[in-house]
Order: sequence, then structure tokens, then C-alpha cells
Amino acid sequence: MYQAALIGVTGYTGMELARILATHPAISLKYATSRQESGKYIEELYPFLRSYPIGQIQITDFDAFTITKECDIIFLAVPHGTAMNTVGEIFHIAHTLNKNIKVIDLSADFRIKNPQTFETWYQIKHNQTDLLKNAVYGLFDIYEEQIKKASLIANPGCYPTASILGLYPALSNHLIQKDIIIDAKSGTTGAGRKAQVSSLFCEVYDNFRPYSIGGKHRHTPEIEQELSNLSQEEIFVSFNPHLLPIERGILNTIYAPLAKNITVEEIHTIYNETYKNKKFIRVLPLGQLPETRNVRGSLFCDIGIAVDTRTNKLIITSAIDNLARGASMQAIANANLCLGLNLDTNINYAPVCP
Amino acid sequence: MYQAALIGVTGYTGMELARILATHPAISLKYATSRQESGKYIEELYPFLRSYPIGQIQITDFDAFTITKECDIIFLAVPHGTAMNTVGEIFHIAHTLNKNIKVIDLSADFRIKNPQTFETWYQIKHNQTDLLKNAVYGLFDIYEEQIKKASLIANPGCYPTASILGLYPALSNHLIQKDIIIDAKSGTTGAGRKAQVSSLFCEVYDNFRPYSIGGKHRHTPEIEQELSNLSQEEIFVSFNPHLLPIERGILNTIYAPLAKNITVEEIHTIYNETYKNKKFIRVLPLGQLPETRNVRGSLFCDIGIAVDTRTNKLIITSAIDNLARGASMQAIANANLCLGLNLDTNINYAPVCP
Amino acid sequence: MYQAALIGVTGYTGMELARILATHPAISLKYATSRQESGKYIEELYPFLRSYPIGQIQITDFDAFTITKECDIIFLAVPHGTAMNTVGEIFHIAHTLNKNIKVIDLSADFRIKNPQTFETWYQIKHNQTDLLKNAVYGLFDIYEEQIKKASLIANPGCYPTASILGLYPALSNHLIQKDIIIDAKSGTTGAGRKAQVSSLFCEVYDNFRPYSIGGKHRHTPEIEQELSNLSQEEIFVSFNPHLLPIERGILNTIYAPLAKNITVEEIHTIYNETYKNKKFIRVLPLGQLPETRNVRGSLFCDIGIAVDTRTNKLIITSAIDNLARGASMQAIANANLCLGLNLDTNINYAPVCP
Amino acid sequence: MYQAALIGVTGYTGMELARILATHPAISLKYATSRQESGKYIEELYPFLRSYPIGQIQITDFDAFTITKECDIIFLAVPHGTAMNTVGEIFHIAHTLNKNIKVIDLSADFRIKNPQTFETWYQIKHNQTDLLKNAVYGLFDIYEEQIKKASLIANPGCYPTASILGLYPALSNHLIQKDIIIDAKSGTTGAGRKAQVSSLFCEVYDNFRPYSIGGKHRHTPEIEQELSNLSQEEIFVSFNPHLLPIERGILNTIYAPLAKNITVEEIHTIYNETYKNKKFIRVLPLGQLPETRNVRGSLFCDIGIAVDTRTNKLIITSAIDNLARGASMQAIANANLCLGLNLDTNINYAPVCP
Repeated sequence: MYQAALIGVTGYTGMELARILATHPAISLKYATSRQESGKYIEELYPFLRSYPIGQIQITDFDAFTITKECDIIFLAVPHGTAMNTVGEIFHIAHTLNKNIKVIDLSADFRIKNPQTFETWYQIKHNQTDLLKNAVYGLFDIYEEQIKKASLIANPGCYPTASILGLYPALSNHLIQKDIIIDAKSGTTGAGRKAQVSSLFCEVYDNFRPYSIGGKHRHTPEIEQELSNLSQEEIFVSFNPHLLPIERGILNTIYAPLAKNITVEEIHTIYNETYKNKKFIRVLPLGQLPETRNVRGSLFCDIGIAVDTRTNKLIITSAIDNLARGASMQAIANANLCLGLNLDTNINYAPVCP
Repeated sequence: MYQAALIGVTGYTGMELARILATHPAISLKYATSRQESGKYIEELYPFLRSYPIGQIQITDFDAFTITKECDIIFLAVPHGTAMNTVGEIFHIAHTLNKNIKVIDLSADFRIKNPQTFETWYQIKHNQTDLLKNAVYGLFDIYEEQIKKASLIANPGCYPTASILGLYPALSNHLIQKDIIIDAKSGTTGAGRKAQVSSLFCEVYDNFRPYSIGGKHRHTPEIEQELSNLSQEEIFVSFNPHLLPIERGILNTIYAPLAKNITVEEIHTIYNETYKNKKFIRVLPLGQLPETRNVRGSLFCDIGIAVDTRTNKLIITSAIDNLARGASMQAIANANLCLGLNLDTNINYAPVCP
Repeated sequence: MYQAALIGVTGYTGMELARILATHPAISLKYATSRQESGKYIEELYPFLRSYPIGQIQITDFDAFTITKECDIIFLAVPHGTAMNTVGEIFHIAHTLNKNIKVIDLSADFRIKNPQTFETWYQIKHNQTDLLKNAVYGLFDIYEEQIKKASLIANPGCYPTASILGLYPALSNHLIQKDIIIDAKSGTTGAGRKAQVSSLFCEVYDNFRPYSIGGKHRHTPEIEQELSNLSQEEIFVSFNPHLLPIERGILNTIYAPLAKNITVEEIHTIYNETYKNKKFIRVLPLGQLPETRNVRGSLFCDIGIAVDTRTNKLIITSAIDNLARGASMQAIANANLCLGLNLDTNINYAPVCP
Repeated sequence: MYQAALIGVTGYTGMELARILATHPAISLKYATSRQESGKYIEELYPFLRSYPIGQIQITDFDAFTITKECDIIFLAVPHGTAMNTVGEIFHIAHTLNKNIKVIDLSADFRIKNPQTFETWYQIKHNQTDLLKNAVYGLFDIYEEQIKKASLIANPGCYPTASILGLYPALSNHLIQKDIIIDAKSGTTGAGRKAQVSSLFCEVYDNFRPYSIGGKHRHTPEIEQELSNLSQEEIFVSFNPHLLPIERGILNTIYAPLAKNITVEEIHTIYNETYKNKKFIRVLPLGQLPETRNVRGSLFCDIGIAVDTRTNKLIITSAIDNLARGASMQAIANANLCLGLNLDTNINYAPVCP
């Protein structure tokens, strides 16, 4: 059994990590930390985990030395900015201990390769640029080999996961022009577990609203970086998110002008070819479209292809569970890979539908 | 009191018409018809209307002669195709009786001016082309004067209402290029009250899904007709709808490339100017965006303006209550106008929030 | 126009009061106060009220002297404990100004007639016992005449409203034994608009949970006081609330052993008789049961009657909108009455269904 | 691998059985039947199962001979009445083939031991009374040994599962008097997947309603039979269900007068003792109460204990996932046991929260 620590257990990504680790056959949670809930048992915080051994773990403050010394893998579910410093501290201790440690950072701190771009969008100066260079972007469908060898994995953002997987075949095969619009919709776990009026039940239920419209959302540079890398061109996107009154799920509707004379059947074939060996990507038959419930609680990314021939646009719809595939289950997939386990260890769940 | 008939009381639009008419001070419902529920009292079908006089109306079969003879205004909440024939029958009888009657048709049958376009999209031949010529498109913010004089009003579709009002200032002022994308999201009352598995609670709740992606939705030609009329150019749109797990509400996110060098502040001023005397259109301050709850149960259309300067796009967000503004409350507004009443008689409700 | 002040505009009851006052023809909101939102306009806080004159009211700090001097009626939507002091201050100023003022207190501070009972349940010593003596319990279906003459009205709690109206005919006609169980379920507006994790969307949605089980909820003594008064016996109830994942609505299922040999039809007749002139109470036909949607956004209390003959129990189901009938709309009804207006002025809305 | 058939794949219980069997390591689905969907592949009906081998199973009509011959275990997810005949047919064929077969019937047909009681409540004459005698009631926490040896298992109803497990320790230890009230609330999957207006999203969402109040629900005799058996007394209950606007989950609030002078701590100890070796029953610490989300997608039954000392009542709250523990996952547990597998094979999922 690999020993693991979970730094920041109180948010929804921490909660989902705990849930998956509760039954993991090869990774054992040893430490769970939280400044505000220190002293409580996990089962007090999360009664749904009562009767699992993980429920009996007592939440502690973060003790970098002990955790780095005793664990093989550390999951960070803390805010950006904080993550950067914690990762620096962990690797510094690991170095002094001459210890090989794996870190999966669920924050944005090691996703953006260009520190200046990071600073522009996050308004924080990056202070771990050496570690940043070696961090691997944890989109395992594409970077599986790099992830296997990585020590520090920048777990992708939820919107970027659905966006990049939706666009990759079209861009890498030059099917579309660069005028890309992503109309994104996310469930409310994406807004975090912080007590704030705008996330209250009665502010979200029976409501739908856009936010950060017009290129203001911080996932924009992450999407652009990866799409530019994968297509070898500089890509800009108009990324526009909305808040759905559901718990889990992202659905992106992506629009781009076709770059050439090509049928929807040909495009569909290219998508199928590109992803034919990717267990957790499902390119739907033509005429079918993804739904968030079809991927709920799972690692799947479902992709639907359509062409609007009247306006010559490729319309890609992609769906994931923002909390599972978009965060914690993807983190476990990355952990599995970098620890030498099978990719799907303990995360090959059938979607929970209904 | 004007006497009214409601043809087709069992769907959600019929239900909402009954709800509003229950308290209308100048229009009295005399007949409510339904083939399947004939014989029942309205309060049996809709217990929420118990104790209102309207609850004691007994639902009957449709008797064209009696209804045309005894009523001043007829609301049709029946499927397209059926509406056409019923409207034809009503006006034929009214003609023989030498009677002036008002008809508000909530179906699509009299919205599309070109019978060939109608046939292409609805797969039905139009058999009332004379009436079609005289029908007025019931978007009262724009066609108020024509509505006042009309006998037959084609009540606008829900998506078109939100789309046209969102785009009108931009198109009529030539602010945007014609490459328009409408990413539309609707509450489930829009799917109707028919018993079908895909509309069951457990198929819709905690789910989000696109449908009719790629220019397949029948509201497309209605939107294009009106936008073309208003801008004096031939307009095509890529219209793509999605189903929201809420009861009431449409939110459209509309994308178009800017046609000229113009700031978001200037665009906002143009929107404010265009709609300054329109009581039921609210152009939100810059930085604010519409939410479906803010218009729930009301006649308002809320509009938000943003510019994505990185990709040079105008992004318009518009929200309505699909059942109220998008159907039945708009029908009452049209009824008020064509009967010579004040536009807002009995429909000046504050939105129901939360 | 009567001039009104709303003390505590930021909670859901304040929000609903603002919504109703936005269109009230005889009461004009002059002051809205909030410590935390002072300086903002109501339409900034509540964008759904944009374009109504009320939206342009600037929220202020509470200035007891000015408000008491300039207003005819004051609504208090502040926490218990705070309300008591504010009411004391207002009446003290009114007295010095020799001014007749009406106060509708939506808190619990003036509901419990026995100060000792109040202290036991609320853990606060009552410091306005003189005012308490003159306060009228604002259940207008029963206390209409007293309300008309009152200066200080204790607006009933949401659960008590549905409980008392459900039990009154049975108790006053001695139909049941005193072993009463109230299994109550409330929508989440009942939990208030405070930022707390337990009220977050993702903690409430797709969930159902009991709370304060076993006689711990503070509405217990309020229910018992009123039932004891109305039946002239000392009544104890087992009151057990649950949290529903809906916004508005309370449904109580009330169980009591029958006290005599009586049929359900006879009981139903007694209920009908008792409430025959009560416009906002609807005793449903036998075989029908209340639903929260049938009263949503309205002042109605719907009551269903059943008898479990196998276990000899009367089962009463009663439904209200906890925010409307259970708080703010009931407050407006009380305001209407004590100002000499018609009971239903501006609150005769048909329920918003769906 | 054991070969299995699923008779009636189109309902929610069939859907959930397919979901669990998709990843079962020791039971392989060979046949899935449905009259209306015959010819389709499972992945067409349930796109969430795409990419699992089970998705490629083609749905067929029910062929009793082939299925009985080729399968080791048969799950019946068909309506009561139909199930009886199908079970009869299967065992008749098995007998002629001299074959040992296991049948898990999810309908009510073999739950009620007394054919007369069955006929009274279900209005159907039981025509398989010999099989009925040998059927085992599949509540594995209590009847594990009998289930292991059974050929025909009557899978318990959802409400009875939560009711019986909640009451068993109290009744078998004579803690309560027999005046039992069960106020039950269920998610909407319990209403089935049939296309009917009353189950439409817009009829259920943002609503809460009682139904079958007053001893009319067919789960009443099932609860009474088991409670009578377990307590060795004749027990009657007042069972009253309500419909929750959630997908999965039952929460029962159960009231009974205390039979003796006993503290809540003592009762809690008895509950803990009774269930100490029951893996899938979690007696919550005093002060904690169950929530449907804490058991969502799992086999757990969570139980909370409280005493209302003011009215001398024991109040038991019990929660299950009606579709998982209340139907299909319980069916798999029973299948595991009667096939000689470990009880928790493939159903030891952590609850899906949030």
C-alpha cells in the first residue's frame, strides 16, 4: 500500500478525493489536513464515510516534514497561491531527505507554463519556477507517458479538461479555423464549498446564470496553452462559463468555423480514430449528444459531433463530471499512473444514472 | 368585461393562461376546451386555482360556432397544424356572423410569413395563406402599433423572443457582422406537458443536455425572419438549444463578431437608447448579467452586454421566463393591446425571486 | 399612501417584503435598512426589482428617530433578540412624539405570551414585557378583529401557521385526543439567507434531512400556546421538522388519535364549516391532498383530511408557502388590516404553478 | 462467471441492475429483455453504459426456455402480477430440465406470505402459492442464512426495507408500544419510469406532496408482516408516504410511544448491539440524523435515534437509497449470497456525496 496525504480535506475536491480513497486497494490515506477542521474525524465532517476505515482518520494541521517523510504521494486540494508554497516546501524537504515523492496539485499553480501569463491572470508572482518547469500537465489521455515519470503533476482544471478533449482532434487535424467559442456550463460543486451567499441553495436552485463573460475566466489561458501546444499554432478562444443548478457536471458547447470541405461523417471518423484507444473518452455515434448525467460520478468524457451546414460550423459538445473527471477522480488516475498502478484502479465506476 | 375562450387548457401554456386570467380585471374566461379533459372543472385539473371563479369553469369540447359567437377573444394553445385549421374555422364563422373577433395563436402556424419556409421546417402545407398575410407577429416591444389593430396575432416563440430582443439593437445599428451564434438554454416547461419518458423528473433533474444541435430547431427560421426584417439584410443564425433542469426560464448567450471599432460602453448606450421606453425590457448596467430567476413569473426580458476584446466579439445575454414572456403572459399582453386595454393590465408582476 | 420602513432588507423575508411592496398600491416603502448593505440601492441587491421605483431606494443604517417620525408602519425582519430592542426603541420614540405607529415584527420576540417560556426556549430574557402584553398574534384568519386594532403585531412563524390552521377545527371541535404529532417539512428559504456551509446548494440539493428531532425546535411552544388557547386545554405536540430541497413551501403531516366515533366525511364537513368564510384557507375535497406548488407565491393554506381507520387516526395535511404565507405576505396582510385596507390588497396572487 | 438474465430492463430498477452488473466480477449479464425495446442495444437505451461490454447486449423478448436453460440466475424487474406468472414458468421449466436456478423477484408477488392478504391489497389472486411458501424475504441483514439457501427470493420493497430496519431493534426488544406511525418520504425513481403526467419534471420539481395517506399504500401489509414476525406480536402501522423532488432516497420518520422507562442512551446502545455485525447498517451517534445523500448510490441504511421526552415518544429516522438499497443493489446482494459469493461483491461503493 502506498501511503498518501490529502492537504485540504474540507472542500468538494477534498471530499471527493476522500470518497475515492476510502475504497482504493493500493493507496491508503494516512493524513488528512485542514486548518479549520483540525481535530475532527473524517466521519464527523463527512458522515457518508462512516464505517470506512478512512472515517476514523483524525484531521490534523499540515505538518510538512512528517507528511513528506511518511507518505509516498501527496494530494493538494488547497487554493492557488497556497499550493505553490506548499509544493515548494514538500520538495525541499524531500530533497533533504533524499526521498522520491509524488505530488498531485489540484490547484492552478503549476498548470500555466509561462510565469508571466500566470501572473497576468492570477495576480500572483510565481515563486517556484524551477518546479514549474518539471511539472507535467495531468491530462492522462494525452500525456500518459509523461505522467508515469512525473514527480509533480498539475491536475487540469475542470473546464479545460472538457474543452481540450473536445477540441484536440479538430485542431490537430486542422479541421477548423481558429475562431473558437466555448460556451461552458458547470454544476455548482465547481463554485467550491465556501460559505457565501451566491452559492446558497436558494440563490442557485431553479436558476441559471452566466458569469465571467467576455474572456475573464482564469481557465482561458490554460485552455489556450494546451490547444496551442497540441496544434502547434497560437490559439485564442472566447471562453464563457455559466452556472448550472446541478451538483456535478460540465457541458461545453464549442463552436468553430470549418477550415475545409469535409462532411460530418469524416469528422466523426477522425474523432473516433484519435480516441480509439482512450478508455475514458467516448465519442458518441452521430446523432447522439452528451448529457451530464451520463458521466456523473465517472471518469468519462463524452463527446458529440455536429455540423451546422447552414453556417458552416463544427459544433462539438463535450461532457464530464467536473468533480470526478474535472478534478479528484482525474487526480487519482494521475496518482495511479505515477505510482505504477493501472490507470483505472478504483476509478472504473459506471456512471451514476439516474 | 371581455369574454374569452381558451382552446387547449391542458398544456403548460394553457395552464399559465388560466393562471393569469384567474385574476384579470377586464377579461373573463368563459370557455376552456380540451378533448381529453372535457367534463372536468378547471380546479380539478389545476388545484392551485381552487377558490377562484375560474376554477368553477367546466372544460368542454371545442365548439367553434358557440365560442366564436359568444367570445371577444380566443387564445389558442394547441399544437401547430391544428391551430391553422381552428383559426381558419373561427374566422370563417366570424365572417358569416359579421363579427369582429380577436385571436391570439400561441402555436407557430402564423409566425412564418413565407409559406414555403413554413412547409420546409414544419413539414406541413399551410392552408390559410390569406389569414397568414394579415397575421401580426406579437412581439409587442417592437410591433405594438400593429398589434393594437390586429385581429390575428401570432404569439412569438419563446427562444425567438429572447433572441430577437437581444439582437435587435446590435443589428439595427449595424454593430455586428452576420456570423451569429445563439447558444440557448431553456427550462423544461418548454418541452410541454405531454407524458413522455424524456420529460420525466428523473430524466431531467440533475442533468443538462443539448438537443437539435446544428441548425435543426424550428425556431431558427422565425428568428431569421424577424432579424432579417429588422435589419433589412438576410440573416442566418446558428441556433443551438439546451434543456435546463428548471421549470421556467430561457437564457440565451449570443455571439457575433463586432463590425466596427466600438467600445462596450458605446454599445451599452445604444442598447439603452433603443429600449429606453420599453417597460418590459431591462438593459442591465455594464458588469451585470441576466439570470433566469430575476425574470421568473414576469414579462421582463433582461439583457446583458459584454465584449470579448481578445476575440473581438459582442456577447449578448438575454433572459426571459419562457412560459410567461415566452408564451402566455406575452399572449395576455397582446390581448390587452388588441382589446384596447393597457399593455400591462394584470401582468405587471414583480418577478418571483427566490 | 402609507409610508413604510423595512428594517432588515437582506434576508429572504426582507427580500419577499420588498417584492410585494414594489407593487403595493397603498403602502409606499420609504426606508429600507441593513447594517451590512447600507449605501447600496435595492436594485443592486435585488436585480429582479430593477425598473420598479422601489429599486431606486438607497439602503441605510437604521435611524430609529427618523423612521418612527416619518413612517406609518414598520416591518421588522431582523433576528429575534434584536427585534425586541428595536421595537422597544420605536414605541418609546412614538410615545414621545405622541404618534400612532404600527409595527409588524416578523421575529419570534412577541409571539410567546409567557416571558418565562420565551426565555426557556430562546435563551434570552424578555425586556419588553409591557409591549408583549399588547402584542397581537398575527394569524389573521383567526384574530382579524384584534389585528385591525393592534399597534404591535407578532407575525406568526411559518411552521406554526401551517400547524395551527391544520389543527384548529379538530381541536376546537374536540375531534382528537391530545397525542399530537406534527411531521413538518420546509423549503430552504426557511433556513435564511446567511452564508453557511449547511445551506449551500450542494449540501441541500438532491438531499432530504430531518433536524431538531425530538421536541427541540423553537416553534414548538408557539404552536402549543396557540393550540392551547384555541382549544382551552393544555396541548403538547411532538413537532419534528425536515429540510426540503425546494425554495418555498411547508407541508405538515399531522397525526392525532380520533377522540370519538366520527367519519371522515363528518370531519370534512366540520373543517369546511369552520373555514367557510376564510378566503385564504382552502379545505380540499376528500381524496385530494395539498402540494406545496399549489400554494407557491400565494397566501393560501391548503388543508387535506384523511382518516386511517386501521389505526384510528386523523391525518391532517396542510401546506403553505413558508416565505409568503409563513412570513412576508402574511405580514402584508396584517399591515393591510391594521392600516384599514382590505385584507387582500396586493396579495391576492394566484399561486405560481408550475 | 455466473450467467444472468434481467427480465424487464427498461424501468429504473432494471436500469440500476444493468448499471451494477456492468462491472460485476462474478455475474455476467447474458440476456436483457423488454417487450417494448426489443432489438435495441443496451447502450442505445442507456448511453451511460456505452463502452462497457454490457452496452453491447441486444435486448430481446422474453424466451423463458432459453433463459432458464442458459442462466444461473434471473432478475425480475417486471410489474407485480406479471412476475408471478413468469416465476411460475421459469421454475416449471427448471424442474423439467432438472436444473437448479436462482430467481430474484423485485416485484411484490412473493413478499406477502398470506395469499389472502396479498389479494386484498393487490386485487390479484395469487396463482403460485407453492412457490410462495418457499420464497425467502430478501432482507439480508436479518435473513442472510435463509437467503444463502434460497432458490426464490422476494426482494423487499423500498419503504419496507427502511421501515423494518428502523423498527426491528425497538420491537424485538419491546421498547415501544404498538401505536406506530411511519411518515415516509421517497425520491421519484420510486414512481417508476412510466410516461405519465404526474411524474413529469415540471410536476415534481420544486414541489412536495403526500399520497396514499391513511393506510392506503400497498407496502403497509409487507411492513406489518415482517414486524409481526420479528416481534412475535401482531403489529399494525399507520404508513403514510410522500414524494420528494429528488431522484434517489427514502427517509422515514417513525414515531412510537415508549413502552418503558428507558433513556435515549440505553436505546441507542440496544440499536448498536443489534446491528454491530451488520456491515450495511450504520447506527448514527446520538445527536446525528440520517440524510438521503449520505447513502446515495450505496447499500447503507443509516439510522438515527431520538426521544421526545415531552411526549414520551421514540423517534427513529432511517434513510436508504430507494433504488440501490431499496431495490437493485439489494437484489445484487441477495444474488451474491445465494450464488455463494461474498455479500458485498461489487456493491461496496462509498455513497456518492455530493
